[in-house]
Amino acid sequence: MGDRESLSKRVPLRFWGWGYESEELSPDEDRIIESAVRQFVPEGAVEVAPPCISDFQLPPSRLTPPASLEGMISSTPYDRLVHCYGKSYADLVRMYLRQADAAPDGVAFPRTEADIEGIFDYAQQQRLAVIPFGGGTSVCGGVEPDVGESYQGTLSLDMQYFDKVVEIDTTSRRARAQAGILGPDLEAALKPHGLSLRHYPQSFRFSTLGGWVATRAGGHFATLYTHIDDLVEAIRLITPNGLIETRELPGSGAGPSADRLIIGSEGVLGVITEATLRLQRRPKFRATASVKFANMLGGAEAVREISQAGLFPSNCRLLDEAEVVLNRIAARPCSVLVLGFESADHQVDAWMQRALEIVREHGGQVADDAVICNPADQPVRSGEAESWRNAFIRMPYYRNRLTGLGIIADTFETAITWDRFPDFYRAIRQGMAKAIEEITGRTFALSCRLTHVYPDGPAPYFTFYAVGDTTGNLCNALERWRDIKVTANRLVVELGGTITHHHAVGRDHRAGYELQTSPLFRRTLAAAKEAVDPCGILTPGVLVDPINQRMGITGALKEKYRHPK
Amino acid sequence: MGDRESLSKRVPLRFWGWGYESEELSPDEDRIIESAVRQFVPEGAVEVAPPCISDFQLPPSRLTPPASLEGMISSTPYDRLVHCYGKSYADLVRMYLRQADAAPDGVAFPRTEADIEGIFDYAQQQRLAVIPFGGGTSVCGGVEPDVGESYQGTLSLDMQYFDKVVEIDTTSRRARAQAGILGPDLEAALKPHGLSLRHYPQSFRFSTLGGWVATRAGGHFATLYTHIDDLVEAIRLITPNGLIETRELPGSGAGPSADRLIIGSEGVLGVITEATLRLQRRPKFRATASVKFANMLGGAEAVREISQAGLFPSNCRLLDEAEVVLNRIAARPCSVLVLGFESADHQVDAWMQRALEIVREHGGQVADDAVICNPADQPVRSGEAESWRNAFIRMPYYRNRLTGLGIIADTFETAITWDRFPDFYRAIRQGMAKAIEEITGRTFALSCRLTHVYPDGPAPYFTFYAVGDTTGNLCNALERWRDIKVTANRLVVELGGTITHHHAVGRDHRAGYELQTSPLFRRTLAAAKEAVDPCGILTPGVLVDPINQRMGITGALKEKYRHPK
Repeated sequence: MGDRESLSKRVPLRFWGWGYESEELSPDEDRIIESAVRQFVPEGAVEVAPPCISDFQLPPSRLTPPASLEGMISSTPYDRLVHCYGKSYADLVRMYLRQADAAPDGVAFPRTEADIEGIFDYAQQQRLAVIPFGGGTSVCGGVEPDVGESYQGTLSLDMQYFDKVVEIDTTSRRARAQAGILGPDLEAALKPHGLSLRHYPQSFRFSTLGGWVATRAGGHFATLYTHIDDLVEAIRLITPNGLIETRELPGSGAGPSADRLIIGSEGVLGVITEATLRLQRRPKFRATASVKFANMLGGAEAVREISQAGLFPSNCRLLDEAEVVLNRIAARPCSVLVLGFESADHQVDAWMQRALEIVREHGGQVADDAVICNPADQPVRSGEAESWRNAFIRMPYYRNRLTGLGIIADTFETAITWDRFPDFYRAIRQGMAKAIEEITGRTFALSCRLTHVYPDGPAPYFTFYAVGDTTGNLCNALERWRDIKVTANRLVVELGGTITHHHAVGRDHRAGYELQTSPLFRRTLAAAKEAVDPCGILTPGVLVDPINQRMGITGALKEKYRHPK
Repeated sequence: MGDRESLSKRVPLRFWGWGYESEELSPDEDRIIESAVRQFVPEGAVEVAPPCISDFQLPPSRLTPPASLEGMISSTPYDRLVHCYGKSYADLVRMYLRQADAAPDGVAFPRTEADIEGIFDYAQQQRLAVIPFGGGTSVCGGVEPDVGESYQGTLSLDMQYFDKVVEIDTTSRRARAQAGILGPDLEAALKPHGLSLRHYPQSFRFSTLGGWVATRAGGHFATLYTHIDDLVEAIRLITPNGLIETRELPGSGAGPSADRLIIGSEGVLGVITEATLRLQRRPKFRATASVKFANMLGGAEAVREISQAGLFPSNCRLLDEAEVVLNRIAARPCSVLVLGFESADHQVDAWMQRALEIVREHGGQVADDAVICNPADQPVRSGEAESWRNAFIRMPYYRNRLTGLGIIADTFETAITWDRFPDFYRAIRQGMAKAIEEITGRTFALSCRLTHVYPDGPAPYFTFYAVGDTTGNLCNALERWRDIKVTANRLVVELGGTITHHHAVGRDHRAGYELQTSPLFRRTLAAAKEAVDPCGILTPGVLVDPINQRMGITGALKEKYRHPK
């Protein structure tokens, strides 16, 4: 078997990091990275080469699928490695370390719901853990088949063949699509109808509709329709115990929402095969502005007022001083607000004008040439917004190389009410700075932006760069990352935030999830899971422990949580 | 014991119908009712007198509470009768019939969460059914203790002593309040802070926060924040197995939302004791307009475009021709749209102007004097809006008397996607007209309005008046109501709607709920319930059957569903 042999029909993914195999950093980008690393490691860092498939000695697959499933299950090294991890820092560094102990025994590529039922039957009979897999872009250990000791094997369930848009209703602005469809394919199918989901997580090119729904992904809109939750009208879920489908309705008050139980279930209740989506018409009118504030907390006051004004900007991203410097958005440290309104229906001048009144009342400086009201078919060219957006999209590619250079590049995100935000922001910065200094003994960078805002509070998103190791010993870097990540998790939850606003819980946020939720709610969720998955085969260890077993933390953080409470 | 003896501290409710005991119809209103009835019953109807407490021979209470609970449980006839039913047509007519077989054996008035825990312990030991009771304004059999054969008694749990606003946060525009607080008391506590929940269901004066949350009540806003769901930030729920509390967060992506499992749980999972609410600043700017359309479906096209334009009117209620005539809003049959925008932040002229452009493009006639942009401290005086609102608020009082006159006055409501709405509207009108004609053999009235609208569809609300009986035999009227209600339930669900948009499921919508939801989801919900209520004491028969028992339909519709599938 060749190294690349696969049952996948997609453009080959880079198995060890972000992007497609064929995508490389440009020479310019390489120079930027090298110069950035020298800021942290003036003496130069030893660079570890990225892995090849032949570097890995995977344990033999434990699967002996029945004839009916043989054609849809792959156990080639490439397929097993692609489905071994998500795309977090810990996932990358473990690939650099040639650690793939948790690689699935096989990868199933079902083409129909009956195929999925067949896979569930097989898994229940053989006591295999089954982990649904969309685009594999989890950054919290969501797709890693590290499932504890009580399974006879692990199977990643790749939904890529569920890639059709089934129905489009332009009257109600809805579409029903299969869950394995990738972001660009979904948008391409909607575009001829003048429609768009307008949901662009950073992973958009690689992630799937089903993954967005299962993880409560955060998207394009900074206000109002922040999570995919709000864009889902109905769902089909195949569980080991049968089908749950919800009715396509604009609203209902008939009992607790079944959709909202499935949304965010992270693969523990079943496999989402279809979702009906609430769409937008493609915007015709846009206004964009960027505004400078002396500092983050001053800018946050303006953003708070905007978020409570009922103006609903589509973009309202506030970058703190460190974020601005890190992304070379302004020459001098300041806080920058990237503000945007869009509409398919009307000019948005009145909306933007009122928002700019608010920012000026809060001392925001609006550059005259930074305010653009233009039809949406002309590209928006606000310098700050554009350069920030480029950095945002390219950042995961940079990390591919930074990891080999021993630099820890990671993010964490949360949400908190406005009354607590100033103290929270200061305490996170102080606490993280102290932790990173103590753990690494080196210089570091830590920045924050508000990605989404609500009338009752913002969703802050923190990015940090720290020195993991300079000598090519990436075990050391992984260990430092663990210490930093545990600190971040603890601080975020202890200070009143949520362990995740839109990255999901997975394995890396499990301890924080348990801190912030009532034990009785988790038992209730476990009981609901048992009703649909009585053998506990689905995604063991995420959100819910397997039946009659306390797994605690698995995945990249398990060394730090040997004795969970 | 006197007739009115009660552990309630509230102004005495009329036990047999809508309103407080002290509230009467005005002589003018009585004349309006009598003249309206003559349209249906030209020969004159025999009027049955409303009941007195002494008309009822309630079975002796089966409760023998322990000393620790004695002071908080009442078994006076008045308390038992007030908690016997909600306020549906079937509830009123059964009171007129002096039928109160399902009156609870007692009513508990807890003052603390520990009291509730004590009541749950007692109920579990004695196998009593416990039915949480807020304001008792259910119109779907939600609070009726008709719980089947397997309980040793029934206890209504009145939350009226949980009536405090605990905390107000003006920065994040939030408040934490106890669940038994009435609408007006909540607003009175918020007003000095310039805040408002702006959630005004028709039952506002009588219903409670906890009831709104438990039933997914629909409120003030016609778009965007339609359900209480969107206004809830966190909840405390006491269950027989302990406490579930959720964290006060503006947004989260950490697993399925616990709030959304509790919201709409209709008392089957626990008793909501507190909720943290997302508030609005009190509006300073308003614009109101009323628009005439030739007919309902033409108006609906305009409303669809408004709902998809991202303008988010606070009011967007479209009345059909019959609704306009019935409420004397216009002289000639037409469809009327009552459109309103409000803001605490900015003038809403631009919003209203664009909405009026849309209605004009759809042939809507905007009367010049019907458009009013005014500061919110001046009362809005649009004739059509005002007269419709008065009729809306007084209608339940009219029904108190109409029921004694043998007139069936009832409503049902749903939501449906826009693509299906025209056919749905026609089919409901035709199907209901046919059914009411066949069942009553008399003239009738049937009207519709859109109460809330979404980008993907409207929430139609139907009202009908039919002749139940003209001879004073209200058994006949109840039987006719049952036949009509079963037809309405069936049509709504078979034609693709939801069995309820905001009236909840209760007992009257149970069959429709089962038609529209997947059996596996209902088993999942039952498993979740068993995790928090292992003895199945809470609100048996609503949403979920008691453990190991198929109750089927109880309440006013049980005669029509003797053999549910």
